[in-house]
Amino acid sequence: MTDWIAVDLQPGLARGWSMRGDSVLDRAQLAAPLTPVTAAAAAPLLAGLRAALPGDAARPLLICGLAVAPQAVPAKPADLVPLPLPLPDAGALALPALSQTSPPGLMPGAAARIAGFFALNPRWDGVICLPGPLTHWVQVSAEEVVSFQSFLSGTLATALATAPLLHEALADQGWAEQAFAEALDTTLSRPERLAAGLAALQADHALGRLAAGTAPARLSGLLTGAELAAARPYWLGQQVALLGEPADTRPYAAALERQGVPCLRADPARMALAGLTAAWRRQSAAGRAPG
Amino acid sequence: MTDWIAVDLQPGLARGWSMRGDSVLDRAQLAAPLTPVTAAAAAPLLAGLRAALPGDAARPLLICGLAVAPQAVPAKPADLVPLPLPLPDAGALALPALSQTSPPGLMPGAAARIAGFFALNPRWDGVICLPGPLTHWVQVSAEEVVSFQSFLSGTLATALATAPLLHEALADQGWAEQAFAEALDTTLSRPERLAAGLAALQADHALGRLAAGTAPARLSGLLTGAELAAARPYWLGQQVALLGEPADTRPYAAALERQGVPCLRADPARMALAGLTAAWRRQSAAGRAPG
Repeated sequence: MTDWIAVDLQPGLARGWSMRGDSVLDRAQLAAPLTPVTAAAAAPLLAGLRAALPGDAARPLLICGLAVAPQAVPAKPADLVPLPLPLPDAGALALPALSQTSPPGLMPGAAARIAGFFALNPRWDGVICLPGPLTHWVQVSAEEVVSFQSFLSGTLATALATAPLLHEALADQGWAEQAFAEALDTTLSRPERLAAGLAALQADHALGRLAAGTAPARLSGLLTGAELAAARPYWLGQQVALLGEPADTRPYAAALERQGVPCLRADPARMALAGLTAAWRRQSAAGRAPG
Repeated sequence: MTDWIAVDLQPGLARGWSMRGDSVLDRAQLAAPLTPVTAAAAAPLLAGLRAALPGDAARPLLICGLAVAPQAVPAKPADLVPLPLPLPDAGALALPALSQTSPPGLMPGAAARIAGFFALNPRWDGVICLPGPLTHWVQVSAEEVVSFQSFLSGTLATALATAPLLHEALADQGWAEQAFAEALDTTLSRPERLAAGLAALQADHALGRLAAGTAPARLSGLLTGAELAAARPYWLGQQVALLGEPADTRPYAAALERQGVPCLRADPARMALAGLTAAWRRQSAAGRAPG
């Protein structure tokens, strides 16, 4: 069994697993820049993961999460072929990103997660949602990505939390479920009310009328409701698999469950590792893997 | 004629005018914090303006732009009575803010601007829009503020320009009118597409498909279109007076003119000074002014 390193790069976090075939020997993680990870920006992260994981310094790396070699959808994530990266690190292979022309879309890390999800849930039928700073709703059919729609709601939430007019109100760490639900219903039925709902939140704060725990929940509800209104064809009458970090996934799960939509939550790191492992196995079987 | 100082405080900028009755003797301006200006935060700005404007160090100040003593609408800006501020600066009087219960709203600096606008445009009939980090659409009737609706679109634009996923695309300083118009039409007809339109902008950037000058114009068009969709009852079939700084006003003017709405642009500092001067004159006539 060849030793290799599985790498999941995403804005903010780089995860590495030291592998022997399908088995995890060791794991490591590093903080990464919040910007999208380019091949050049990946180099120090890859060196850092190599250093953090004991073993042969020259073993190959298989990476997901880079915006490289975009393959247009429809595409079957399990069929994607890893490509060598133009880096000094000669052993670095990357899974291609998925792209779409209309509407314009790019998913650097989704292919491995979706391939891993299907490896662990064969023949699952429904819609896959990958929540994050950039959330992707993915229509799949027979384990193929047919089309997707991305939303920047998570980035909006983070950006607003530091905006001068709102950051004081949003420093509150509480979470009032009722405030979330009311805000969600507002923009789910009238998504054009988003910017007005945010202004009302600011006014309530300035007038001293905000109850504890309501501001972050209201912000999240307003953003999630507007997104769900626009993504309705993706979830209405469907079951949804949510592949995201818990903090990113929570508002989607709460909102979808309120609409009676059955949700399955899957750990995105585990899905990425399963997808990378399956790609590594295919690569080795085809005799394409270095080493 | 008594000497006094007119002060216009807004997030980011404090303006002062040294006055003799209705006449401007001198002017000064200071950078201010971007957060809403509270009475306590105002103290150093007021001291700074006093120091920058030559004249009697004890002359009274009349201030607009503070979130103090909110008066619920409907209210006639020209009837508002300046109130003493709880500050060590004994000569400081402030015009009350305007507030609304439903939807929640607070306009710290609008009353003076609107009073000044009517002082200079008596019996003008239409809707007043005050663009800024927080934009207010104000329904007026017989020079009275009947109701208003606020939007946080300007704050969203600023926050997104520094968001990790978008700041590189938005560092572009160009302005492509066609890109603005297309983005405007997208969200004006389907405001729920805002977060998806932002994600498409991010994807076009990541895929290297953005033409120069299009990113900032697209962002502005998406945000302005969504706001105009929600504010439609305020501008449809109306004439609109835009009282804002040129950079804040430009997208509103371009968007409204594309919809065939006649727009009047008025300098917000000049309106504030006119409103403060009228209030000072009433105050003096009533024998309420200090000095």
